[in-house]
Amino acid sequence: MPASATLSLSGERFTAVYRLSGTAAEVEARARAICLEQTVEFPEALIPNQAIRTQIVGTIAEIKPCSSCSDSSSAQNPNSFEVSIRYPIEAAGREFTQLLNVLFGNVALQPGVRFQRIDLPPALLQHYTGPRFGIAGLRQQLGITDRPLLCTALKPMGLSPTELADMAYRLARGGIDLIKDDHGLSDQTFCPFDERVSRCAEAIARANQQTGRTSLYLPNVTAPADELDARAERACERGAGGLLLCPGLTGLDSLRRLAADDQIALPILSHPALLGGLSLGSSQGLAQDLLFGTLTRLAGADATIFPSFGGRFAFTAAECQAITIAARAPLDRLAPIWPVPAGGMRLEQVPELVTFYGQDSMLLIGGDLHAGEELTARCQAFLRLVRQASKQTPND
Amino acid sequence: MPASATLSLSGERFTAVYRLSGTAAEVEARARAICLEQTVEFPEALIPNQAIRTQIVGTIAEIKPCSSCSDSSSAQNPNSFEVSIRYPIEAAGREFTQLLNVLFGNVALQPGVRFQRIDLPPALLQHYTGPRFGIAGLRQQLGITDRPLLCTALKPMGLSPTELADMAYRLARGGIDLIKDDHGLSDQTFCPFDERVSRCAEAIARANQQTGRTSLYLPNVTAPADELDARAERACERGAGGLLLCPGLTGLDSLRRLAADDQIALPILSHPALLGGLSLGSSQGLAQDLLFGTLTRLAGADATIFPSFGGRFAFTAAECQAITIAARAPLDRLAPIWPVPAGGMRLEQVPELVTFYGQDSMLLIGGDLHAGEELTARCQAFLRLVRQASKQTPND
Repeated sequence: MPASATLSLSGERFTAVYRLSGTAAEVEARARAICLEQTVEFPEALIPNQAIRTQIVGTIAEIKPCSSCSDSSSAQNPNSFEVSIRYPIEAAGREFTQLLNVLFGNVALQPGVRFQRIDLPPALLQHYTGPRFGIAGLRQQLGITDRPLLCTALKPMGLSPTELADMAYRLARGGIDLIKDDHGLSDQTFCPFDERVSRCAEAIARANQQTGRTSLYLPNVTAPADELDARAERACERGAGGLLLCPGLTGLDSLRRLAADDQIALPILSHPALLGGLSLGSSQGLAQDLLFGTLTRLAGADATIFPSFGGRFAFTAAECQAITIAARAPLDRLAPIWPVPAGGMRLEQVPELVTFYGQDSMLLIGGDLHAGEELTARCQAFLRLVRQASKQTPND
Repeated sequence: MPASATLSLSGERFTAVYRLSGTAAEVEARARAICLEQTVEFPEALIPNQAIRTQIVGTIAEIKPCSSCSDSSSAQNPNSFEVSIRYPIEAAGREFTQLLNVLFGNVALQPGVRFQRIDLPPALLQHYTGPRFGIAGLRQQLGITDRPLLCTALKPMGLSPTELADMAYRLARGGIDLIKDDHGLSDQTFCPFDERVSRCAEAIARANQQTGRTSLYLPNVTAPADELDARAERACERGAGGLLLCPGLTGLDSLRRLAADDQIALPILSHPALLGGLSLGSSQGLAQDLLFGTLTRLAGADATIFPSFGGRFAFTAAECQAITIAARAPLDRLAPIWPVPAGGMRLEQVPELVTFYGQDSMLLIGGDLHAGEELTARCQAFLRLVRQASKQTPND
């Protein structure tokens, strides 16, 4: 193999932090293997030249015991380590798909590696436009400065567009800020996309005229790869105030593409369907805050739905807090985004949720709005509860 | 809520089989919850009308103890059950994204549910064109009827297009049937896509002319959502003989779309990067054979790469066998596809691999081809080993 005379990279690198278990020696060997696996995917001894060895292969920046890690369960395991590996920015180039590949492509297939965090330099971040609205942009859009936002879903699947539009009207009358399609509504024969979007957008616009408030309608544009763009465009034309997307079903890069589309330019709410499968199990996959916080934000979502503690799912309070921090923490020039705790939340939990998630959060309550009394009245109760709890919660 | 007068579905359903743990009563309750979670995502008592309750909500077809399951580890757990749930075909419609959503969207976020199998009726399968080539089509393309196929990757990352083309030439001279880009090669500044594809395709065509054999070049077209199509088209124009795609990075539906594109019409090799993260852990995620076998095939891949036992990854022989069966078993009108065991395979394993995976398999050996002697000679040894082992292996 001839020497690679042309390889002359910048030397700038981005960092991935993985959590590994084993003795110090085992972890170091494993870390070394990851440096190769995620770049050259080649036995170290066979790397054809020194330029590739020094410029392409990942380098271990740090290995530290998890006694100094934030996560308490791992902190108690003396055989748990955090390994920081640095990859050349040119390996990922300007492509989100390839960035994900270098960070975790093959290693995702290996048990015992938990992908915890990333640190991307501006030279790499420049390729990402990130969230178009984020917390501040959506507050401005809605004219709400002083409380968490209210969100709900149009459901259940099986209702007709007319029935969902009637529901949307009553939700908007009741003061819900963001009214999204259930993520199970796509373009079914019993509820065609175009008709649903037209009717629901019209119903919410009518309610807005009557209340003088702004409720946004966010249709679900999760769709086959060759239909997603057209569906987003039709949603725009028909008066959508935002979009719902499930990047686990469409690919995370579809979220990035949608968010970067200046012809669409609507707030995007990201739903965790399927994607969340990559975050289960504490010793493998991606940490929840990395997946639903950092990466979803990097892809350009303005709000990230995740299953809150206290509902039908199994995320812990600590995991939910970590997601919330990753959604809102400073990240170069990328706008902070809305954490959207969901998954079986109930009205009675509102005070606790507002205290826990703070002012800059969006509370998504679905089924429980339909329990008991009349829907509009129940929405009004939701709004009252949020306002009350909000007064007792300082700004973040 | 008014009655849903218009809901009138066909009554046809498709089936998902999940593995759950617990007492019989717990499992039944959990199964009931999945029936709701994956369709209406609504509390049962609040479902607005009887039509939705009977036509939309999933129904439990069977709950059986895993003592009768094929997987031996679970079979020994008396608290393990397989639950078959049936969903209306109209819920998934004609969309792969929505099919995945109904099958496993929200449940993917819940630990303790392993998604094992699917059974789709023709009324649903009609929306999927499936693999264009499959086993028979690729055999015909290559003119090879009597042995497993040989596959390798152009790597390591860091080589220039000229260097990779030189390597491609020698691999083709050595008799490798399918020569793919390493999945880490995208469109980096040090190895631009267009130049790489042109040079490698030319080099392999030249070798083919000299040998009289057919080696195919499969560039990696994994790319951002707004570039994938163009990259596949340019690969076609520049003489690619097939395409490599990582559907975990682009979204599984991008694979379906690519495979269904009559303007492209090349064999597609699917790589498990990131996707495999959904299959780790025996009590959650998707079973390996479902993910890398059935679903990858349904999406239209002609060959499915997975990490074989005996390499750098942790799949067991039983899991690899299950993938192989799912890739090749009868599945309505969908062509059987090539199982492609990979991930650190070595030449010395060829006899064992051929015996294990059979004639209708594609052996992917990367780094080990570069160990020891000269590359072309080592490829010839690979081919000899496959031919020898093949004579001792009956047709599948």
